Amino acid sequence: MQRKYDSIRPIKWENDQLVLLDQRLLPAKEHYLQYEDVIDVANAITEMVVRGAPAIGVTAAYGVVLAVRNQNPEQNSNWQSDVEVDLKTLADARPTAINLRWAIDRMRKVIAALKPGEEPIEILLQEAKLIHQQDIEANYKISDLAAEMLEINSTVITHCNAGALATGGYGTALGVIRSAYEQKKIKLVYADETRPWLQGARLTAWELQKENIPVKLLADGAAAMLMRQEKPDWVIVGSDRIAANGDVANKIGTYNLAVNAKQHGVKVMVAAPVSTIDMGSHSGEEIPIEYRDESELLKIQGQRVAPEGVSAWNPVFDVTPACLVDAIVTERGIVKSPNLEKIKTLMS
Amino acid sequence: MQRKYDSIRPIKWENDQLVLLDQRLLPAKEHYLQYEDVIDVANAITEMVVRGAPAIGVTAAYGVVLAVRNQNPEQNSNWQSDVEVDLKTLADARPTAINLRWAIDRMRKVIAALKPGEEPIEILLQEAKLIHQQDIEANYKISDLAAEMLEINSTVITHCNAGALATGGYGTALGVIRSAYEQKKIKLVYADETRPWLQGARLTAWELQKENIPVKLLADGAAAMLMRQEKPDWVIVGSDRIAANGDVANKIGTYNLAVNAKQHGVKVMVAAPVSTIDMGSHSGEEIPIEYRDESELLKIQGQRVAPEGVSAWNPVFDVTPACLVDAIVTERGIVKSPNLEKIKTLMS
Repeated sequence: MQRKYDSIRPIKWENDQLVLLDQRLLPAKEHYLQYEDVIDVANAITEMVVRGAPAIGVTAAYGVVLAVRNQNPEQNSNWQSDVEVDLKTLADARPTAINLRWAIDRMRKVIAALKPGEEPIEILLQEAKLIHQQDIEANYKISDLAAEMLEINSTVITHCNAGALATGGYGTALGVIRSAYEQKKIKLVYADETRPWLQGARLTAWELQKENIPVKLLADGAAAMLMRQEKPDWVIVGSDRIAANGDVANKIGTYNLAVNAKQHGVKVMVAAPVSTIDMGSHSGEEIPIEYRDESELLKIQGQRVAPEGVSAWNPVFDVTPACLVDAIVTERGIVKSPNLEKIKTLMS
Repeated sequence: MQRKYDSIRPIKWENDQLVLLDQRLLPAKEHYLQYEDVIDVANAITEMVVRGAPAIGVTAAYGVVLAVRNQNPEQNSNWQSDVEVDLKTLADARPTAINLRWAIDRMRKVIAALKPGEEPIEILLQEAKLIHQQDIEANYKISDLAAEMLEINSTVITHCNAGALATGGYGTALGVIRSAYEQKKIKLVYADETRPWLQGARLTAWELQKENIPVKLLADGAAAMLMRQEKPDWVIVGSDRIAANGDVANKIGTYNLAVNAKQHGVKVMVAAPVSTIDMGSHSGEEIPIEYRDESELLKIQGQRVAPEGVSAWNPVFDVTPACLVDAIVTERGIVKSPNLEKIKTLMS
């Protein structure tokens, strides 16, 4: 059942098509795009029509359904091997978020378990819908667990967008904020604008405003002064991949924020479903970090800001070491002061 | 005598007018504006046609010349008291940079010292030109002193624009970089883009590119990852006001950068003329911090990025406590690990 403050769903399956809210156009335009081809879905992920680790996981699950359907399983007896090239394209659409690979692997297991004579498309679609629904339910659970850690009238900072837009719905970090706001535990949300893609200014501000949750934007570089002067209670962020030792990859600027939080006694919470935890990455060092085109910095919304010929350094994720994280909150429970042992226990 | 890598002068006195390079239009357009009226000059400072603490000091000195000229001293025997209202408007154009008040006070002393029968305008113009020339010479001196602290092939990070554009010419932080580059001590300059006004992307990149000094832009939030991964040698910045105890007010994001520098063992240098030191501010707490219109964050180059109705927190300076500063370099000498006693000695 949908909750209060839960009005946004960026991913839908309608009329046998995948439908994605085009996040590149927000907040100016609320425009949905239809997909019937897996390569178009992979491009949509690369080009950030849809973004946010859990959201691209859910999108990829539906992408697998489209990939199999286009292989025409009723006529192509080799579809299970032929579809692998599509699944690889999908998995390679973005490198950092582990949820993308996790969702494809889960769909692959369903393919492998198909019995002779079973109709693959309907079964895979049910699995994709289940992944989608379970993601939303995980967010509800994360949010309820995390909200208990907040005091009445807290002020929080968030970075990037870990909201309904970044997930199947409700959100991870913004799910916590929604749930805590409902319990009168949030007075004000400060949102880093989050350069270069401006997820904070464009998406988080849009999302919180839609729910009437009070939000104020700030420049990413202003967070240290905010911490010193306004003494917020928590930094609450999502994650694109959590290593086995508790190191957290998230949107560029998160590490910067966590260093400042430690310096100013502000607690740091990472809200993420267990599908974000990658036991195969022993530490943050092993998490592949995506570098995107320098034009994301040199231009803003298509307008050139830097002089022609100047170059830019544009890693779009960074790694926050576990020692700077006070709590990782998953649907299976809270891991305080995360380390390898605690993450292993959570995952077992 | 002008130096190598010294091709930019943002402030000129030509044809009995003050001429300012319009920094709002850079790097797209190199356009100069002419001023004959002090109120227009005050507006130019407020609206950031010219910005940077030493540059607005120099501009204000020429502004005083225009103010006195428009009082028509030959016909108005009360011009010395009548001009005070103009000087107050000029001094109030921006609150944080102390150089603005410093320059006006210095011009006021020249007015007070005028002897009967002396021609005020020419004498004041000579003083303004002297302030301008001394600012450039201070930058040369600062740069030579500071460059000695750098090793061969250093990598440095700078924030905002403390270049020729922010001063009478040559620059403070970028003066150090120019001088060190000439001595082969700089391999690469990383420039924070510096939201919200994008001084790094628009001005520092333009200025260094014009001198063929290698520069790479980054998002402000990426600096912590840069420090961890690329291990730069120095953060080099300018300042808008330095308190008596060595606390440094500078463009928003500087404090954020300094906290991260300390965490990563990167040294922090503040390059500024002594006119930036305000013995009347005992600590950073006493420095007035300017908050500018939230539209600077909500729009970028006139285009709306955040949703309508969302608000923003937009302090445009922050204070870096002296304990995070390794060296303040002035034309009178270097103050390592600054504190009240050392600053007093420098100023005496």
